[in-house]
Amino acid sequence: MESLFILKIGGNVIDNPSALDAVLRDFAAWQTPKILVHGGGKIASKLMEQLGITPKMVEGRRITDRETLDVVTMVYAGLINKNMVATLQSLSCNAIGLTGADANLIPATKRPVKDIDYGYVGDLTPACISAGMLAKLEKAGLVPVMAPITHDGAGSLLNTNADTIASSVAVALAKIFNVCLIFCFEKKGVLRDPDDDHSVIDTLDEKLYRQYKEDGVITAGMIPKLDNAFAALHSGVEEVRICNHEELNGGTRIRIVG
Amino acid sequence: MESLFILKIGGNVIDNPSALDAVLRDFAAWQTPKILVHGGGKIASKLMEQLGITPKMVEGRRITDRETLDVVTMVYAGLINKNMVATLQSLSCNAIGLTGADANLIPATKRPVKDIDYGYVGDLTPACISAGMLAKLEKAGLVPVMAPITHDGAGSLLNTNADTIASSVAVALAKIFNVCLIFCFEKKGVLRDPDDDHSVIDTLDEKLYRQYKEDGVITAGMIPKLDNAFAALHSGVEEVRICNHEELNGGTRIRIVG
Repeated sequence: MESLFILKIGGNVIDNPSALDAVLRDFAAWQTPKILVHGGGKIASKLMEQLGITPKMVEGRRITDRETLDVVTMVYAGLINKNMVATLQSLSCNAIGLTGADANLIPATKRPVKDIDYGYVGDLTPACISAGMLAKLEKAGLVPVMAPITHDGAGSLLNTNADTIASSVAVALAKIFNVCLIFCFEKKGVLRDPDDDHSVIDTLDEKLYRQYKEDGVITAGMIPKLDNAFAALHSGVEEVRICNHEELNGGTRIRIVG
Repeated sequence: MESLFILKIGGNVIDNPSALDAVLRDFAAWQTPKILVHGGGKIASKLMEQLGITPKMVEGRRITDRETLDVVTMVYAGLINKNMVATLQSLSCNAIGLTGADANLIPATKRPVKDIDYGYVGDLTPACISAGMLAKLEKAGLVPVMAPITHDGAGSLLNTNADTIASSVAVALAKIFNVCLIFCFEKKGVLRDPDDDHSVIDTLDEKLYRQYKEDGVITAGMIPKLDNAFAALHSGVEEVRICNHEELNGGTRIRIVG
């Protein structure tokens, strides 16, 4: 099977123009099929503030009401997504900016109301992903750039977590490609010592992960990320990597068996 | 050759939710390859006002400065485009929302500064259109929904006239398809009497057009639209139609020979 790289970038990159530029340059240069998944960043909050929209919170959780959905649609699917596409095009990378509504790539489910009504928020599983259509776009020489917006199939867009999109796309495409999923975040990788940026763990397998958790080396904040990484690996993804924007080819390699 | 329909809708439809809904329903039901091209409408001006951005005008012409470009990118490529895509998806139309930056569909030219610097405005000719890529998307079963934004190939998006995009795409695709280009506007068609909505001219050929111009039946406002329509026909487009949202299959049919 052919290799495919999925790079997820979040607010820490998007809000930092020189970091974003560096990441897009590196990404554009990769000579394999590839997908970029991006999150939001502070621009949407800033725009909401300028428009006098108060972020709705319930029990400390952010709610996507109609006004918020409109703002994230404008900022994520419009401003951020299309400017990235234009930059990638200038770097000879044939990017195509997409939400999960486009080409029905990700028909998601509006989060059911239990204790909290999160509003226009989409939940999804790898089964939601139109892997065949993504493969068709790849085959046409296109590089999908995916905004964290999906749809409910009934006419409404949905605000959706970009990490979940990245890992779901990775698992869905693992049937067609050898998928490497790269999370670009603020640290250089998984650290042995959270206060020492040079203590990057090179390779992490499940045995080592269990050991590090027992020893308290890997701390609470990293555990959900790593649990998700191992879940993706168990669902067919070849490799997950956690790195920062300075070294997309470095960081921590996560595999079931090291 | 297979038929392909290109529908252009402008602000008068976009700003009117029930008209937009009717148009999208009709468009979704068409069983041929098709493309929707949309303009802007008042939402961008309203957002600029809310953000305290004063529209820049030079000699009565609107200028797209950096701030304005960001707003139109958010509104046209984000809010309007992605909501249309979600609506079309709910109507079983496999829409994909695109700017001219996506898939490098329309590498345009930033308008050269002569007397006026229009700012980030894109000019294009049919030769700019990536007709082959559009045909590939059509072949994949996708329905392009095009926002009036292009790019300069050097990393910048450009605000671009939607009528120009529609007619350029029509001419470019006329080599591959029998293209029918439909402009959905405020009147029911080309009128014999501007004050009588029931005086729609059914079919207009060049001879009749010349006659109507001589007789003063067709007035100044319509002449550039019709000149452009005949130019598209002379460049290979099969038929141009001018209608309003109530009757997408009605209006005035324009052909070189009636």
